[in-house]
Amino acid sequence: MLILGIDPGIARTGWGVIEIRNSKFEIRNYGCIETSARLSSEKRLKYIYDSVENTIKEHKPDVLAVEELFFNTNAKTAFIVGQARGVILLAASKKKLPIATYTPLQVKIAVTGYGRADKSQIGQMIKTILKLNSIPKPDDVADALAVALTHAFSQKMRLYDKVIR
Amino acid sequence: MLILGIDPGIARTGWGVIEIRNSKFEIRNYGCIETSARLSSEKRLKYIYDSVENTIKEHKPDVLAVEELFFNTNAKTAFIVGQARGVILLAASKKKLPIATYTPLQVKIAVTGYGRADKSQIGQMIKTILKLNSIPKPDDVADALAVALTHAFSQKMRLYDKVIR
Repeated sequence: MLILGIDPGIARTGWGVIEIRNSKFEIRNYGCIETSARLSSEKRLKYIYDSVENTIKEHKPDVLAVEELFFNTNAKTAFIVGQARGVILLAASKKKLPIATYTPLQVKIAVTGYGRADKSQIGQMIKTILKLNSIPKPDDVADALAVALTHAFSQKMRLYDKVIR
Repeated sequence: MLILGIDPGIARTGWGVIEIRNSKFEIRNYGCIETSARLSSEKRLKYIYDSVENTIKEHKPDVLAVEELFFNTNAKTAFIVGQARGVILLAASKKKLPIATYTPLQVKIAVTGYGRADKSQIGQMIKTILKLNSIPKPDDVADALAVALTHAFSQKMRLYDKVIR
């Protein structure tokens, strides 16, 4: 199973593709979609949409994992991130890709086992779990891999659940 | 000149098309795109995107007028409305439609001459200016026509400006 994790943002949208194989996790690819603040909002959104569409075409993931909305931010930020998240969900929807959403708390607990983990702890765990030489940069990429891993863990749990029953 | 005004929302997206002809305003059409809360976010966003795309195809507007982000709301609402606004901007961007944005204050002043006008005053002015038999319902449609009219007024002002100079 191939999981595409995305961390939406208007300036930087991090993404990462993880494969579950023989109940192990392997990284396939990751990257960051960056848009210039000199472009209009609609051009930036179109660029994000086209890039996500291409990423889906190229990697053919089975599912998109993305974080649920976060409340510890202000309305302006939520509005801007919401616009980016909207076009990303649309790209997935057009490709009939199932979408799994997780709260920031679920992601932190899944990846670090600790609900109050900070960015550097998440980055460190991502590096360890995926056997990378360094923590993926920028943070948006690490966050995208974290939500993809969260989905991977939740699939593994379900599998165990079935075996036990 | 044909102006498409849109008031984005996940449950209801109001829209209206206004024509400026001989420096008068005429209403062409208006409607409301409604999505069921029983559908997933991504299906609702896709429905909104497809509907806006069809509205653009059918009416061939010269410009999209839409309200700027509003700060007097909470992060959750801003995030959800942001997602809807994102796919609407994308639909316009894909059709290379110019986008004009106005703040809620600009809309109120343009339509009623008063920055603290309430919904019923805006509705009443829309009805009067566009010579309608009743105030368009729901509020989302009135709001969409209000932002379209705001753009219409601003175009007229620019025209006057040129004549005076």
